[in-house]
Amino acid sequence: MVKASSIVRLRWGILGTASIADKIVNGIKKAGCGTVTAIASRDAAKARQWASKRNIPLSFGSYEALLKSGEVDVIYNPLPNRMHAEWTINALKAGLPVLCEKPLAMSASEARAVADVAKTTGLLVVEAFMYRYHPLWECVTKAVKNGQIGDPLSIHSVFAFRLDDESSIAASARLGGGSLMDVGCYPVHAARMVFGQEPVRAFAFERRRQVDDSLTGILEFPNGAVATIESSIESYERHQFQVSGTAGTIIVDKPWFPGEESSSFIMKREIEFEDRIVECDGDDAYRAQVLDFAKAVVKRQTPRWDVQDAVANMAVIDALFASAALGRPVDVMIP
Amino acid sequence: MVKASSIVRLRWGILGTASIADKIVNGIKKAGCGTVTAIASRDAAKARQWASKRNIPLSFGSYEALLKSGEVDVIYNPLPNRMHAEWTINALKAGLPVLCEKPLAMSASEARAVADVAKTTGLLVVEAFMYRYHPLWECVTKAVKNGQIGDPLSIHSVFAFRLDDESSIAASARLGGGSLMDVGCYPVHAARMVFGQEPVRAFAFERRRQVDDSLTGILEFPNGAVATIESSIESYERHQFQVSGTAGTIIVDKPWFPGEESSSFIMKREIEFEDRIVECDGDDAYRAQVLDFAKAVVKRQTPRWDVQDAVANMAVIDALFASAALGRPVDVMIP
Repeated sequence: MVKASSIVRLRWGILGTASIADKIVNGIKKAGCGTVTAIASRDAAKARQWASKRNIPLSFGSYEALLKSGEVDVIYNPLPNRMHAEWTINALKAGLPVLCEKPLAMSASEARAVADVAKTTGLLVVEAFMYRYHPLWECVTKAVKNGQIGDPLSIHSVFAFRLDDESSIAASARLGGGSLMDVGCYPVHAARMVFGQEPVRAFAFERRRQVDDSLTGILEFPNGAVATIESSIESYERHQFQVSGTAGTIIVDKPWFPGEESSSFIMKREIEFEDRIVECDGDDAYRAQVLDFAKAVVKRQTPRWDVQDAVANMAVIDALFASAALGRPVDVMIP
Repeated sequence: MVKASSIVRLRWGILGTASIADKIVNGIKKAGCGTVTAIASRDAAKARQWASKRNIPLSFGSYEALLKSGEVDVIYNPLPNRMHAEWTINALKAGLPVLCEKPLAMSASEARAVADVAKTTGLLVVEAFMYRYHPLWECVTKAVKNGQIGDPLSIHSVFAFRLDDESSIAASARLGGGSLMDVGCYPVHAARMVFGQEPVRAFAFERRRQVDDSLTGILEFPNGAVATIESSIESYERHQFQVSGTAGTIIVDKPWFPGEESSSFIMKREIEFEDRIVECDGDDAYRAQVLDFAKAVVKRQTPRWDVQDAVANMAVIDALFASAALGRPVDVMIP
């Protein structure tokens, strides 16, 4: 169904006018991987205004209209979490590959349903975890894989901030908010990515009002390595990632928004007297993300992460929520 | 039973020739709170040699002989963990107050038994958690209590190192070793001290061979605040403590061995643009510890921490071990 023969011709359509969409519009420009040709909002005037402000040629007053328009090749879906799976499936059924904001769905089984439609339609779905496309993370995972810190044993990772606006999507149970869904999915993903394994069990405590304002969990990996993860929408803003092994530790100061010009992490090792600052390339992670997606769609390259990764990440999130609700550790079950 | 009328006359007896005893001998000298007059070892020659090397007048070939000698006013007990409660009780029954190395006992109920004997004999028992006597910690706890970081929500604390010597006490189940008993008791204690509350529930995963080589746990406090604690005897050495609240975070880089000349922590706050390095006094924590103990014994001052604190700390350790064994969260029960 993709009509573009090269990535520069790729036509992107965006569902909704979420503020994060601007990062993607900008990333597409920087990557030279096509043009945003259409935006849809349930409010036609809002869509029109959004489009005109950004020189986007087309706007639609419904998501459905955009999907059926024939004017776009791929969809970027930054709708509220609760609508991710539904509209990603609708887009796939309309013949359009989808880059969908994280988290892909409200649960692993919902993510599985998305993956199943992707399979039957033969179309690509990728979860928009932009941070992982930043070259910093290839540096970090390589260092760990190459044994720079010995056998990896533990990860501690945090994404916490304080939400001032109680009416925001992140605070809304109805829209699929909460700390784990909004930001905790990052530490969960980074732990899986850096250990290069899926956790087998999860345990969590949470502070819950309408949603999980804070959630702190432990993930146990097959070899007994563990990751402690912390998410919060009521805490002083903290972005942290540290992985430690038998012979060293790596501290990533800016894990979720690494620098565009350059990036770095701190490595402390038994065999070195001084801490080392390891310099890595910079990049706009949004740029790298849309480029990888575009190449996978147009050039049929294997995407760096596919929809199965999103299913697995959601399975861990499911287990953490279930654990907090049941008050006991829960096995991670990837559907 | 204490015959010294001023702390300079206090006569200390030491049970065993553990290497940490030298820190205490040194601390007593620096504090001017008496003299180490006797050392006991089950190996009389070893005791003699240890004593002569340090100009200690008396040595005994059994702990019992030292306790019954009438030559000491107080006991410092740095025996292996498994022998802490037994010989602390023996010393109390011989009429001698005891400064006992951490952890005070093998379990909360054993610690309770020690506390009961302390009560019936009317003699002081203090757990030798030296780090807490360092002025850095008064700085940190005051900052938290004064609301400098808003409402405290989470603590992350680590004491990990790599044991090279498999025959060491810390690796021995028989002698009461393992990562939580050897070093994890620090993060547990610091979390209780800084939150100023007792946790209600604990959960832990462990990597266990002969002992818990690594243990990672979460403690839940009454208001839903949590502490993640990590201990290891198989990991790259890491000493970490961070407490975060709604409006800021405090990072303590050297939590367990703060500087003798000075100390500091990093404070990041919402209302300040730049991170702040908060300077605190330095001290020899061993010196401060023996001085507080000596003043409590001789001048009948209230010790900064009493035996009940040790019982409560052991109760948390019990709960973490029980959780790791049972695979479910366990309520903290302070006997």
